[in-house]
Amino acid sequence: MLLDMAAMECNLQTMARFFSQGSVGLRPHFKNHKCPTLAFRQLAAGAIGMTCATVAEAECLARHGVQSLLIANEIADPIKIDRFIDLAGQTEVMVCVDNEKIVDAIAAAARKKRIQPGLLVDVDVGLHRCGVQPGEAAVRLAKAVLEKGLQFRGLMGYEGQVLRKPPGPEKVEAASAAMRLLIECRDLIEGAGIPVEIVSAGGTGSYNISGRYPGVTEIQAGSYLVMDTDYRQCCTDFQLALSLLTTVISKTEGERVVVDAGLKTLSAERGMPSVKGIDDVTLKRLNAEHGVIQLENPSVALQVGDKIELWVHYSDATINLHKRIYSIRNGEVEEVLRIEG
Amino acid sequence: MLLDMAAMECNLQTMARFFSQGSVGLRPHFKNHKCPTLAFRQLAAGAIGMTCATVAEAECLARHGVQSLLIANEIADPIKIDRFIDLAGQTEVMVCVDNEKIVDAIAAAARKKRIQPGLLVDVDVGLHRCGVQPGEAAVRLAKAVLEKGLQFRGLMGYEGQVLRKPPGPEKVEAASAAMRLLIECRDLIEGAGIPVEIVSAGGTGSYNISGRYPGVTEIQAGSYLVMDTDYRQCCTDFQLALSLLTTVISKTEGERVVVDAGLKTLSAERGMPSVKGIDDVTLKRLNAEHGVIQLENPSVALQVGDKIELWVHYSDATINLHKRIYSIRNGEVEEVLRIEG
Repeated sequence: MLLDMAAMECNLQTMARFFSQGSVGLRPHFKNHKCPTLAFRQLAAGAIGMTCATVAEAECLARHGVQSLLIANEIADPIKIDRFIDLAGQTEVMVCVDNEKIVDAIAAAARKKRIQPGLLVDVDVGLHRCGVQPGEAAVRLAKAVLEKGLQFRGLMGYEGQVLRKPPGPEKVEAASAAMRLLIECRDLIEGAGIPVEIVSAGGTGSYNISGRYPGVTEIQAGSYLVMDTDYRQCCTDFQLALSLLTTVISKTEGERVVVDAGLKTLSAERGMPSVKGIDDVTLKRLNAEHGVIQLENPSVALQVGDKIELWVHYSDATINLHKRIYSIRNGEVEEVLRIEG
Repeated sequence: MLLDMAAMECNLQTMARFFSQGSVGLRPHFKNHKCPTLAFRQLAAGAIGMTCATVAEAECLARHGVQSLLIANEIADPIKIDRFIDLAGQTEVMVCVDNEKIVDAIAAAARKKRIQPGLLVDVDVGLHRCGVQPGEAAVRLAKAVLEKGLQFRGLMGYEGQVLRKPPGPEKVEAASAAMRLLIECRDLIEGAGIPVEIVSAGGTGSYNISGRYPGVTEIQAGSYLVMDTDYRQCCTDFQLALSLLTTVISKTEGERVVVDAGLKTLSAERGMPSVKGIDDVTLKRLNAEHGVIQLENPSVALQVGDKIELWVHYSDATINLHKRIYSIRNGEVEEVLRIEG
């Protein structure tokens, strides 16, 4: 996998500039690139900490010395709860909850280790996945967190249902409606006398809407840094930086070439990746180990052994298929970055 | 990931019984499970060697001492060609070719190391991916292999286009038509005075057709051992043995539960996985880290913290997302198997 450092740095700066102009913080999502070196670039550019999807990702970043972590997800397995508590004894790490039973389990594990970790209450702002219903359920859970002797740090609401809408008034309205639900929850909880320090939301597809919505305190965007052709359809503020280097292993004259990349190295879960920098060719099919590229123009000068770069279409589910990223500057490999977590 | 050992062993025996009754050999495809321990079970059950998709898989099996390997794929990158030649100096390993330029490159690398590796000519029998056209092109390439001082071992033809057809006369005809093309190639090459020792074909979806077609010498089936719900639709000879253990992390009363498994641990590239052993629930959606299960009956007694097994839908692109398989016998973990390659 190749990372165009100039494009990545441009994305880094674009996002840093946006967040330098307001009071909202950027807590980039590590689940996208899983690369500690890139996390350090994000922190150096002003990020207030990192967001993770799993306990393992948070453990990885803690090992690398990252200080402020949010696991933007529920955990329920007792082993994972214990690992979270152990981690909370070492660094500042928060986790999301949407269920009183889990609050009880976290509290019991925390008491044993005499730790008081911070929790965010996850509110369903329209994605209909995890999260309590907006309103009184959120207030009840915030109270339960405090009653069990844990720290209630605030709220998370992930407006995943709007991130891939095309830009425009409809998207602004949909994201704002989701944030309105979240801020109404905050007001209810604060009305009950409980301070709400953190209101975490957003992603690359909504950073410029939710990141300006009054009351939101931090944004969890991740994909903006390396981008992909899926996100690029709805979010043109950032450049494509991530591609996969492949080799042509077969050619059927005038019809197609086959490259040595397939579903084990490149996700097609959200649509087909595409060929970088070559006209008149179409990636038609990905099998487990093969990519079939149709020659729309039979005279395209591709031969067996040639190198072809494919744009990553869905970076979240592609980077995790790899162990390292080769960073490229001025056409040369600059570093070999480890993917972890 | 959990492997039901009783089901796996039943599949192992079913396939071994089929191949014990003819002169055709089974060379199981390692790319499916990538697990050396399972490869040893297949070899102990009578397999004549292993098939691999990549040089890395072949290197892995060679490290484990497996003696006879076929890389059922083209290679074109000079580094991979060198690795293949190095490997051929250590163990019996063959690779497929469909292009004279690569035959030249392999021959040049082989000469330097004074090695004479074995090659199969890959013939396109209807999948329209890799492979030379059936007929004179195959004869020319077989001659080129010999002229360059390499061993011509035989032919490969992968009838991937028929594997997932439902069983019945149409499938028999389609697979037989593909094998006919392959055997006609063999006859042409032998007619030119060149012996064709190996004719390799097939997969789990066609083992009982291509594996009985006169002239075919070996079959590359892989998925039969652990199976998946995709293959199971067209191939009921084998039992589902592979599932993913997940934890319910969120419940919205009467509507849905969410488990901690998504596209990073379970492929949906060929369709949606399903829930094992629980009625009235449907896995509706997989995001990167979440699986959303709809409760078709609101009274389904699932709670946060409960363990749910999901059937793997596409084992090829799911196992490679994991580092280990937990083998289960009589409800207990028997071994922890490493996934490699």
